[in-house]
Amino acid sequence: MTAVSQNNSFQPINLFEYEQLAKQHLSPMALDYYSSGAWDEVTLRDNRAAFERVKLQPRMLVDVSDRNLSTSILGQPLQLPLLIAPMAFQCLAHPDGEIATARAAASAGVGMVLSTMATKSIEEVADGCQNFQNSLQWFQLYIHKDRGLTRTLVEKADAAGYKALCLTVDAPVLGQRERDRHNEFALPLDLHLANLATISGLDISHEKGESGLFTYFAQQLNAAVTWSDLEWLQSISPLPLVLKGILRGDDAVRAVEYGAKAIVVSNHGGRQLDGAIASLDALTQIVTAVDDRAEVLLDGGIRRGTDILKALALGAKAVLIGRPILWGLAVAGQVGVAHVISLLQDELSIAMALSGCAKLQDIDSSLVKVSKHIE
Amino acid sequence: MTAVSQNNSFQPINLFEYEQLAKQHLSPMALDYYSSGAWDEVTLRDNRAAFERVKLQPRMLVDVSDRNLSTSILGQPLQLPLLIAPMAFQCLAHPDGEIATARAAASAGVGMVLSTMATKSIEEVADGCQNFQNSLQWFQLYIHKDRGLTRTLVEKADAAGYKALCLTVDAPVLGQRERDRHNEFALPLDLHLANLATISGLDISHEKGESGLFTYFAQQLNAAVTWSDLEWLQSISPLPLVLKGILRGDDAVRAVEYGAKAIVVSNHGGRQLDGAIASLDALTQIVTAVDDRAEVLLDGGIRRGTDILKALALGAKAVLIGRPILWGLAVAGQVGVAHVISLLQDELSIAMALSGCAKLQDIDSSLVKVSKHIE
Amino acid sequence: MTAVSQNNSFQPINLFEYEQLAKQHLSPMALDYYSSGAWDEVTLRDNRAAFERVKLQPRMLVDVSDRNLSTSILGQPLQLPLLIAPMAFQCLAHPDGEIATARAAASAGVGMVLSTMATKSIEEVADGCQNFQNSLQWFQLYIHKDRGLTRTLVEKADAAGYKALCLTVDAPVLGQRERDRHNEFALPLDLHLANLATISGLDISHEKGESGLFTYFAQQLNAAVTWSDLEWLQSISPLPLVLKGILRGDDAVRAVEYGAKAIVVSNHGGRQLDGAIASLDALTQIVTAVDDRAEVLLDGGIRRGTDILKALALGAKAVLIGRPILWGLAVAGQVGVAHVISLLQDELSIAMALSGCAKLQDIDSSLVKVSKHIE
Amino acid sequence: MTAVSQNNSFQPINLFEYEQLAKQHLSPMALDYYSSGAWDEVTLRDNRAAFERVKLQPRMLVDVSDRNLSTSILGQPLQLPLLIAPMAFQCLAHPDGEIATARAAASAGVGMVLSTMATKSIEEVADGCQNFQNSLQWFQLYIHKDRGLTRTLVEKADAAGYKALCLTVDAPVLGQRERDRHNEFALPLDLHLANLATISGLDISHEKGESGLFTYFAQQLNAAVTWSDLEWLQSISPLPLVLKGILRGDDAVRAVEYGAKAIVVSNHGGRQLDGAIASLDALTQIVTAVDDRAEVLLDGGIRRGTDILKALALGAKAVLIGRPILWGLAVAGQVGVAHVISLLQDELSIAMALSGCAKLQDIDSSLVKVSKHIE
Repeated sequence: MTAVSQNNSFQPINLFEYEQLAKQHLSPMALDYYSSGAWDEVTLRDNRAAFERVKLQPRMLVDVSDRNLSTSILGQPLQLPLLIAPMAFQCLAHPDGEIATARAAASAGVGMVLSTMATKSIEEVADGCQNFQNSLQWFQLYIHKDRGLTRTLVEKADAAGYKALCLTVDAPVLGQRERDRHNEFALPLDLHLANLATISGLDISHEKGESGLFTYFAQQLNAAVTWSDLEWLQSISPLPLVLKGILRGDDAVRAVEYGAKAIVVSNHGGRQLDGAIASLDALTQIVTAVDDRAEVLLDGGIRRGTDILKALALGAKAVLIGRPILWGLAVAGQVGVAHVISLLQDELSIAMALSGCAKLQDIDSSLVKVSKHIE
Repeated sequence: MTAVSQNNSFQPINLFEYEQLAKQHLSPMALDYYSSGAWDEVTLRDNRAAFERVKLQPRMLVDVSDRNLSTSILGQPLQLPLLIAPMAFQCLAHPDGEIATARAAASAGVGMVLSTMATKSIEEVADGCQNFQNSLQWFQLYIHKDRGLTRTLVEKADAAGYKALCLTVDAPVLGQRERDRHNEFALPLDLHLANLATISGLDISHEKGESGLFTYFAQQLNAAVTWSDLEWLQSISPLPLVLKGILRGDDAVRAVEYGAKAIVVSNHGGRQLDGAIASLDALTQIVTAVDDRAEVLLDGGIRRGTDILKALALGAKAVLIGRPILWGLAVAGQVGVAHVISLLQDELSIAMALSGCAKLQDIDSSLVKVSKHIE
Repeated sequence: MTAVSQNNSFQPINLFEYEQLAKQHLSPMALDYYSSGAWDEVTLRDNRAAFERVKLQPRMLVDVSDRNLSTSILGQPLQLPLLIAPMAFQCLAHPDGEIATARAAASAGVGMVLSTMATKSIEEVADGCQNFQNSLQWFQLYIHKDRGLTRTLVEKADAAGYKALCLTVDAPVLGQRERDRHNEFALPLDLHLANLATISGLDISHEKGESGLFTYFAQQLNAAVTWSDLEWLQSISPLPLVLKGILRGDDAVRAVEYGAKAIVVSNHGGRQLDGAIASLDALTQIVTAVDDRAEVLLDGGIRRGTDILKALALGAKAVLIGRPILWGLAVAGQVGVAHVISLLQDELSIAMALSGCAKLQDIDSSLVKVSKHIE
Repeated sequence: MTAVSQNNSFQPINLFEYEQLAKQHLSPMALDYYSSGAWDEVTLRDNRAAFERVKLQPRMLVDVSDRNLSTSILGQPLQLPLLIAPMAFQCLAHPDGEIATARAAASAGVGMVLSTMATKSIEEVADGCQNFQNSLQWFQLYIHKDRGLTRTLVEKADAAGYKALCLTVDAPVLGQRERDRHNEFALPLDLHLANLATISGLDISHEKGESGLFTYFAQQLNAAVTWSDLEWLQSISPLPLVLKGILRGDDAVRAVEYGAKAIVVSNHGGRQLDGAIASLDALTQIVTAVDDRAEVLLDGGIRRGTDILKALALGAKAVLIGRPILWGLAVAGQVGVAHVISLLQDELSIAMALSGCAKLQDIDSSLVKVSKHIE
């Protein structure tokens, strides 16, 4: 592994140490924007606590000399059961922004979900990855009030080779992150919403008042979207549809019935509805409800390879990881993101070895026992 | 929203921040009186903890572009499922006292329950609200040893347009708030029990010793009141009867049988019987026992819009909020109370949007999962 | 109430404040001896925590204007369902020692259990109470290796008017209280084991090394005592037998079968077997097993009137209280003990009023709900 | 007991105090190596917490005047149900290293498991114990990639009189202890892997980089070992086979079927798979699955005599203790180890007396109640 800081004797060896180190590389406003959750941040904390409530029951005396961590998602190969979650404004962390993230993901063979709110465009990100075989990008979107804008984004993503549309369904309105409100969070003047600015002329960077982002959502995002709008979305694009933000079994069943090929069990990293159930606590009911009719992914609180193991044991096909990628990006750009991914890969590999799992298919529900917490 | 402090750069954006700010506006004795609970304050803390034990399972892809937060209580319309709990001595927080509180409530379309122990009279409060259409006041009372006094209060409330009698049933004797005992809590000389002083000549402001309030209760309140006394109360007034302080299903059934039109599940904000069950933990059994024969309200620990959502999901028709109103009143009088209400309104509206509820009727029990705590 | 410290402005208003104040009146060695539990003090803490896990569901609209807190134990009247637990060496706390304690108990109409390890003799304590009608003393004893010594003690207790023999069954060996070991705990030269010294010439006050008390136990107490020895004990005395230190239902059944008239559910205040179940957690199974064939008492962790209410709701006939009595004794001798008792009495009276209980017989199991903790 | 520090007034009286004292006798690198667990050390902490969740229900009025703590393991007598767990590099703690540990164990009549990674050789340790009758040593091993090396170790252990082979099955790869990684843990130049260096020429003491130990494992240990390799191991040695590191009932059944005579329920002291179930929490299912077809031992978190009692009550035949032995070794060599053992012995003896158990066979499952934690 390339060292992340050549002239710095401290090398982070886990994702928590990256978080600490990133604080030295980010403005307070950006750090707050990235790290905060909604309201009292109960769900933010519970996402982590849920992993600690799950105990592992490892299997011994299995040949684990060769571990295979690869899988496929929607038919596309991944070297790890891992995608990078969609996150806005990555140029706040590093000038290379989403391009650095995408290149690190592609080089490691993990997926990346590009945010509609990216500070690099759909095409720039795709171009940045063109030298990587089998690189996997999805495009995250909302159904905007302006359907033409939505259609344009979808068409651009398809044209640029993105492999799926990841529709965020848990943000009909924006969650209240109070640190942002106190900071009157806004983008610096030199950053732009690369996808939206060129299409619609929208730009949130110059807004004043509470939070430019809040204003944008209030104006542009469509709180009237319902299940039937998924039909329209599928009618304008051949790309498979992924729904991100499902926390109930009945919603998961509907997602399948309305054509979703994958579901991301997520509470938006605790940034939307504070008090929402930890994503890991919601996983089992959703896996049961879906009953293999779609692929089930999970995000929220993944910080260790053992967390990935636990999520897979409880039925997830893969996981998404968010904030730690930003910490890597802030510390050392593409190299930092790559190092974060590689730390997780090493940890997952060791966790599998120590659990008696040579390949992902060996990870089953007998590996986990859940402490009583949620009825 | 009008700013609560024009020449102060810090604007509270939630009820906890109001609590912090209020400490600068209250005497230590008043702050202690308002904030304390009985004995070891276990119930005071548990009222809050109970909300954190309830997790939300939000519903997605519902049209929540128009949210309707209005409801009715005992046939009277409310813009929010919210009433202001009866609280004594509000002039300790601000010279305008209960009048400011009532005007803020009326302007926001929420109910207000005036305490018998108010420092503004029944008539002053009613007069203060006469310009507001559909303003809703209830009158909180005890059945005093002096039945004539009780009757006089009831008649005044009815004459002044109060819409219900809210009988506090959890205070046959006064709970022991130990900070008040150490402080030898008493009212300042310039404050008066506006309702009682003019009727009975009673005034607790000049008492000495442990606590003037305690002395008053020992002398005047009637620990012999039983269910059959409710018949007398209903015989002297046409106003509907609300019982506040019920914590058991069997008591709730009796309340219905004895004619109560609404029940407030409450432990008096943890100020009476320390060790009592958190009001939220008692809610389900009471809703089940009442079985729609009366309206069920709840108070105790509400500090966020999501708390209101949780209470409604568990079967409450509306909630009452106490201390945070006093913090708003202390910080900025009527404007402060209005801001506190508006913060809760915004939070509830957002919480409903993020849970897939466009109107209060959409809030059902499937939205909540309770962590195991109480058998 | 007589003030406990005339020239001190601070008057404790609860038992926790007495504990704080007592620290100024006790030598570090005596404070450690009184306050410590065995080993890691897990059970000491759990005794308290168990009470916090029990929640009250109070009943409303009951006539509680006259509360009757009196009961009887083994046919003897008590003004409160309270006895003072047997505690050694009370002259460490105050020169009047057990006599002060007994007089305070007698004047308040509560029982007192005199320890074999008392620093005042059986007769001195009885004489001290002769002016109190219906004063109730029990004598706590062990079955010593020296049966003659045991017999002598029993005969003295009977002759002096003690009403029961309270046999401690949880101390076949002495629990390890590590603070005492570090302190090399020993009695000061001017204190004597009043009951034992005069009979047997034994005196632990001059022992050196680890702990004089430990040495005494190792030499004198009989770890070979079994159920059949209870027959011998009953054969030498007409006094009813109380077994203190039972924590299992099957042992409680045996106690009944072997003639015990009352059982004290106790873990010796956490001073014997650390890790033992909290006494309150053991209560229900013992009440069920005994099935009214004996009276069931409880000690361990009682600090509030609500704790007494909870214990009675779970089936205890009365409770014993230990350390807080010593705090009162240390602060102000008999007056301090009396004040501690009166604080508990006031709290129990208020707790009953607030729970809808006019008399002890009204306290039933529907008043309590136990948080899940012990399987 | 010989004092552990003649000219030091502080004598540790429990294992926690030994841990504190040992910090003054160890280099930071050695202290970190000994005390750390894998990754976030969740399992390390949970091993202890699991014991606190188990509550004791002691039996009274049993003749416990003579306690017999002796047992046998695999037909060999032990004075205590205790063995010293295999631990690497004991010369880091004291120049006498494993010899001192073995002599202390032998003199106390407890077993010792010598680590393959010892800094004293198989023969040195055996020679050091030759004056002790019935001294019991087992040899801990891995199945190395180099089968000849493995065979040589096994033959040496048998020749030197070791009574069993204890195969560690939970380390196909080495767990990540992050303090060691930051410290770049390596052995000092004057320490050698006494068993391996002389056979294979391997020596990890001069490695550089992350951790010499990690490098050694990556090179030498065999992650391909499976159940069928147990047949080979049994074919080359008549010694009974003990499997250490089992955490599942199904693995325990397999262990029996493949010929294991004893199983050590263990998560390697929290040093391998962080997040693994606490060993005590796994015990019951394994005892049930084994159904007396093999002897079940446990290690992980034992610090008090009551912990041994709890483990035996839940079905263990004996326990292994690790780190506290190293603390004793660091403080005072053989004398320190002996003192640690004697403290545990005293505590177990007292715990048995206080629980009504005169001999180990009296310890049954009715003595324990488990707080709800693991489903």
